[in-house]
Amino acid sequence: MLGGGGFLGINLCRRLAAAGHRILAFGHRGLFSEALTSVEFREGDLADRTAVANALRGADVVFHLVHSTVPYSANLNITRDVQENLLPSLALLDLAREAEVRRVVFVSSGGTIYGRAVQIPTEEIAPTEPVTAYGISKLAIEKYLALYELHHALEYRVLRVANPFGPFQIALKKQGLIAAILFGAMCARPIEVWGDGSVVRDFIFVDDVIDALELVAVHTGDERIFNIGSGVGRSVRDVLISIEQLLDRKLDIAWKGSRAVDVPVSALCVKRAREKLGWIPKTSFEAGIAQTIAWWRCNIDSVMRTYLANELQRKAANYVD
Amino acid sequence: MLGGGGFLGINLCRRLAAAGHRILAFGHRGLFSEALTSVEFREGDLADRTAVANALRGADVVFHLVHSTVPYSANLNITRDVQENLLPSLALLDLAREAEVRRVVFVSSGGTIYGRAVQIPTEEIAPTEPVTAYGISKLAIEKYLALYELHHALEYRVLRVANPFGPFQIALKKQGLIAAILFGAMCARPIEVWGDGSVVRDFIFVDDVIDALELVAVHTGDERIFNIGSGVGRSVRDVLISIEQLLDRKLDIAWKGSRAVDVPVSALCVKRAREKLGWIPKTSFEAGIAQTIAWWRCNIDSVMRTYLANELQRKAANYVD
Repeated sequence: MLGGGGFLGINLCRRLAAAGHRILAFGHRGLFSEALTSVEFREGDLADRTAVANALRGADVVFHLVHSTVPYSANLNITRDVQENLLPSLALLDLAREAEVRRVVFVSSGGTIYGRAVQIPTEEIAPTEPVTAYGISKLAIEKYLALYELHHALEYRVLRVANPFGPFQIALKKQGLIAAILFGAMCARPIEVWGDGSVVRDFIFVDDVIDALELVAVHTGDERIFNIGSGVGRSVRDVLISIEQLLDRKLDIAWKGSRAVDVPVSALCVKRAREKLGWIPKTSFEAGIAQTIAWWRCNIDSVMRTYLANELQRKAANYVD
Repeated sequence: MLGGGGFLGINLCRRLAAAGHRILAFGHRGLFSEALTSVEFREGDLADRTAVANALRGADVVFHLVHSTVPYSANLNITRDVQENLLPSLALLDLAREAEVRRVVFVSSGGTIYGRAVQIPTEEIAPTEPVTAYGISKLAIEKYLALYELHHALEYRVLRVANPFGPFQIALKKQGLIAAILFGAMCARPIEVWGDGSVVRDFIFVDDVIDALELVAVHTGDERIFNIGSGVGRSVRDVLISIEQLLDRKLDIAWKGSRAVDVPVSALCVKRAREKLGWIPKTSFEAGIAQTIAWWRCNIDSVMRTYLANELQRKAANYVD
């Protein structure tokens, strides 16, 4: 599993380990190494060809969960996004062939790959017109996966995941609205939110995403690409209200104006995943938020420590500049 | 104009120069420098950032006609295809912004971008599922062009050109079936053809493609992407028969088996270009072939000299290895 130390990676590692699968997690361990004690973890970077080659040895299914950028940051340096994500993913495909990996499961971006979708909720066959370089490189990787299956019989499946949230998501890379809100709420800081609250997203609890990852790893049908979301759009304002109700207090929001990378509405049609994967999202939004709040209450201290360490590091770097 | 020394580039340079436009051609001069005497030509590589920046200075419309690979070769080294084509194209977009270029016109690939199309002839809104990395990098460049228009107001238009043929196309990069056939016919060598002759392509005479490039440079409508082809599919076998009739002799064909990068049928629906660009293909296939044969008769000596020089160079390189 590539990206085992990230938000989806940690959740997937824990699920697979609990089910008795033999897994090797590769990536940057990040904040929650104690959450991965039952997993073999190898520290390394996707750009390190030798390390990736070693990690792939003997693997049957590879989960590719790495992306160094987020929708906003990718647009600031598109060349770097290609160099850090697309090129290492191509190298990964060659290495997977050499290692005789059977299948690659790739987490793509249901929230950005369609761009300003005409049809809401959006089906997998809708046009893909990303308005961020993040979505374009995800799309290109999907296309190369298809090429490797066609020419080299390397199987693949893609999950176009909407906006996942849940335990182990922290907002340090400025991705994850719900994590950013809860982090702000827990340490009583103003919460920076882009837009005016009208932007609609499709939030899906991480446990449901992990269900889909497990199913897609063994899927034998003809489909290759599956939307994974709740199927229902929810405005940022509604999310804030739900969280305020569950926390039973007002949040301190600092509205930041809208951004060109944010499409006004994103909600995925998940009919294909229901019918062809036998997947259903089991967790209601409110239940997911409640679980996430519970997690934050237990983990705010360690997240806070990391956040402060990061801040200090950034300030030190500024002095050097 | 980037790629002014290539097949489309030479034809476009000559047309624009004849119409009195001020143009700067940039690229590798190639074989036909005497055909470009009335054009300012600057020798340079798309990967050379400074040279490209200088070439763009003062340009209003930029034609991007460069691609270092062809459908077959791109698959042999996909990473290199990305490094040589996608990354320099991204750099070009940044440089075009800095130079305050108004519009970029990009020649994409109507023959590969759709992959194994379900609908024939294929419309612009059809799914894009390339079976070659060449088509994927063309597709990615299209998407980045849209991004730059959205975020930076750099206008763009894309022509998805089918299989162009005509004067100044030579088959040294192994692209261009008709050029390969005529080269072989002219110097009485066996002509290597992939497949069994059943593969169908949409051949379009180069003068008609140049018409479309001129029109799209000044197009003011909402459309961004236009298919450019004859609209009619023609099998390789039919092409061979037509050429045999026009030359009034049998060709010596060496059939080479089929390749995975060759989709069985490619033919483009060109309704959008007819209606929105006011473009129509004016040259019948037979008339185009006749003109191309006439050109080959005048130019076989210089093409042959280059071919032999290339062969010698390759042999010399082999000795060094």
